[in-house]
Amino acid sequence: MDCNGFAAYGRQESAGVTIWLTGLSGAGKTTLAERLTPELQRRGHRVESLDGDVVRTHLSKGLGFTREDRDENIRRIAWVAALGTRHGATMLVSAISPYNEGRREARDQIGEFVEVYVKCSLDQLIERDPKGLYAKALAGEIENFTGVSDPYEEPVSPEIVVETDMESVEESAAKIISRLECLGYLAPATECVAAA
Amino acid sequence: MDCNGFAAYGRQESAGVTIWLTGLSGAGKTTLAERLTPELQRRGHRVESLDGDVVRTHLSKGLGFTREDRDENIRRIAWVAALGTRHGATMLVSAISPYNEGRREARDQIGEFVEVYVKCSLDQLIERDPKGLYAKALAGEIENFTGVSDPYEEPVSPEIVVETDMESVEESAAKIISRLECLGYLAPATECVAAA
Repeated sequence: MDCNGFAAYGRQESAGVTIWLTGLSGAGKTTLAERLTPELQRRGHRVESLDGDVVRTHLSKGLGFTREDRDENIRRIAWVAALGTRHGATMLVSAISPYNEGRREARDQIGEFVEVYVKCSLDQLIERDPKGLYAKALAGEIENFTGVSDPYEEPVSPEIVVETDMESVEESAAKIISRLECLGYLAPATECVAAA
Repeated sequence: MDCNGFAAYGRQESAGVTIWLTGLSGAGKTTLAERLTPELQRRGHRVESLDGDVVRTHLSKGLGFTREDRDENIRRIAWVAALGTRHGATMLVSAISPYNEGRREARDQIGEFVEVYVKCSLDQLIERDPKGLYAKALAGEIENFTGVSDPYEEPVSPEIVVETDMESVEESAAKIISRLECLGYLAPATECVAAA
């Protein structure tokens, strides 16, 4: 990774950012967001979680999973994330967001944007399948299921890639935190400052 | 009005509030929001305008004007207003929001909530009618038009009432600003501090 360690940190405490977790269903986006939240709060960030599934009840009731409806859902999430980011929040978005174009539009609109590709092989996801969704999708019981019957476009140049089929939740979270420090979005942890 | 003048102001600079302008179409909600925005910004507030018509393109595309769709639209606006308010923004909502229940839910969810009833007689609105909407509604060409073919429930105990059929925009805006100072949501203007 090309960064100068902690040197980059010089942002105002009130500056917001959107951390956009993209990846297949079950890859671990929500789990990671839940793991990151207390750590970011401990460091003084005002965190808001925008979980794709939850957002669908608040903002996108009635939208389905066609390309058009998915795009509209992502536009709404991006619109809210932009608002929160403008007001200094750390917006943790967990959304499959399968299309590069939608994520690029979100990035352009939000500005302070960190794309995290939560990567996991389809084999692994089919094996885990805690909600039985992949089994249903493979049996043709769910239409437009990303990765099975609907495309997922891998991020072209995400700021962070975590590989949840090869890393523990702790390892992936630590990688994200470290990279956020590196990018200047997080002050180094207290112990690092003390050690400097 | 029952308040202790400027004594109430003691809120943190970072505290947010939602100023919720409700009233019939054409009563002057958007005009007032546009007039208030620079004045609030001048006083250091981070203002976000959530205009009902604009929000319908961002959050509520596809929703119509049935009771159910109106309620859903107001719930989405309230959800976003709550988020902005939590992060210190002054959210200026301009939405017909015809039902007491929807406004009460918004108040409960948002907490720091100032309801402004932008009141104007139907006679006056029909006479003004810059967009010709009332003429169309009266001719039966628009269904579910608030005040004509759809109900508007007057606010029960709004913090502020402005009467745009009897006041100029300046007078209504000044009344809102003064009342916000009184309620402790705005620091007194510089000249008042100097005079104290």
